[in-house]
Amino acid sequence: MTHMDLPHPPSMDDLKASTRVLAFDIFGTVVDWHGSIVREVQALYPSVDANAFALAWRAGYQPAMARVRSGELGWTRIDALHRMILESLLPQFGLTHLTEAERAHLNLVWHRLDAWPDSVAGLRRLKTKFTICSLSNGNLSLLTHMAKRAALPWDCILSAEVFRAYKPDPTTYLGVADTFDLQPHEVMLCAAHHDDLLAARNCGLRTAYIERPLEFGASQPKDVSPVQGNDLHVCDIQALADALGC
Amino acid sequence: MTHMDLPHPPSMDDLKASTRVLAFDIFGTVVDWHGSIVREVQALYPSVDANAFALAWRAGYQPAMARVRSGELGWTRIDALHRMILESLLPQFGLTHLTEAERAHLNLVWHRLDAWPDSVAGLRRLKTKFTICSLSNGNLSLLTHMAKRAALPWDCILSAEVFRAYKPDPTTYLGVADTFDLQPHEVMLCAAHHDDLLAARNCGLRTAYIERPLEFGASQPKDVSPVQGNDLHVCDIQALADALGC
Repeated sequence: MTHMDLPHPPSMDDLKASTRVLAFDIFGTVVDWHGSIVREVQALYPSVDANAFALAWRAGYQPAMARVRSGELGWTRIDALHRMILESLLPQFGLTHLTEAERAHLNLVWHRLDAWPDSVAGLRRLKTKFTICSLSNGNLSLLTHMAKRAALPWDCILSAEVFRAYKPDPTTYLGVADTFDLQPHEVMLCAAHHDDLLAARNCGLRTAYIERPLEFGASQPKDVSPVQGNDLHVCDIQALADALGC
Repeated sequence: MTHMDLPHPPSMDDLKASTRVLAFDIFGTVVDWHGSIVREVQALYPSVDANAFALAWRAGYQPAMARVRSGELGWTRIDALHRMILESLLPQFGLTHLTEAERAHLNLVWHRLDAWPDSVAGLRRLKTKFTICSLSNGNLSLLTHMAKRAALPWDCILSAEVFRAYKPDPTTYLGVADTFDLQPHEVMLCAAHHDDLLAARNCGLRTAYIERPLEFGASQPKDVSPVQGNDLHVCDIQALADALGC
């Protein structure tokens, strides 16, 4: 590949003019899963190490999706994957006494995650100029209940469930462009995770990295240094609205 | 089947207590396709009989979906079906001179339909107590653009496109219940069309008929007399909110 074959990074003006849809990753990017789970577990089960519990639950997430991707499990919603992980964690956290109703309620904490403080105001601003949607591995009911509770003003809720594939499968990123009858470069993925952004970029989408240094809590601050390749790097969703002129 | 096997109609209190999701038909029920198309065609092409044009376009809708249902066409979005019908109508309405850009723009009038005057206020009230979603044969981008323009406050946009089947296929009605992990009777279809409601009822959903006597314009008033079997019969979406205690 010669230098001339390399895609030129678009100017900010090009970016503002060509972007039509902003697709947001959700867990960690728009909502604070760690803090929300810690708060709920501390309130319900004060004897449990809520920080360790939240981190362990989330750590089971990628391996569970990998079982679906590999075909070991058929298509399975995140609600069901979260429940399988939860069941596996109950013994080590001394929670095997939980009733079925208590387990079901705790599992749905993922529907009750709180937004980061900038998310709602930032999304409201972005919505005035762009179509804003979710693109999450979370299932539709999870994302709907979350949006209703946290007042996330999506124009449309898109999910792995719609495309029957989990990110980072290209089906999901290209699915957003196809849904809106757009070229991939007219869609921008906004996420706090470089692997997600890289996969989107490989499909031709624009990408915005959103710093979330406390995604894993204060005990595990995240390196949020810029990485080459993203079209934008912003500290939060209000800053994204600033950058995109909303 | 004996009398005892017949499902008892639920009381209003049962209905209010057991219903979790209200799924709305869109074309004719929430938005005024006839009036919106008439207004746009009159403005763009004053020599065309806009009433006849709107009625002819809509008349092609069920036959076009039937071609998908029968397998003659593979899965095809309503945007593409609308375009096929539009192309077939251009000669008889003297519009063959339209450029590709003009045809594409006119076709997207279905994304720009105006809500009935009661829809937004009624949906806002219903949203305080229920999860409200669309269940339309319209595609996701059509429903998203329409909601954004007309300020329809959906909690979630569901479409035939999500389920890859057109109403009245049971996949669509049962798909709503499945998406929200509910029993069919916890979902109510709200529509201005008896065939849609009947198909939903046959899947175990609750149903609300919404009168839209002017769906086809003033030249073709619709019979909106009550039909047996619906759980509710209301004049509009504000009245639905009244009936459901919102």
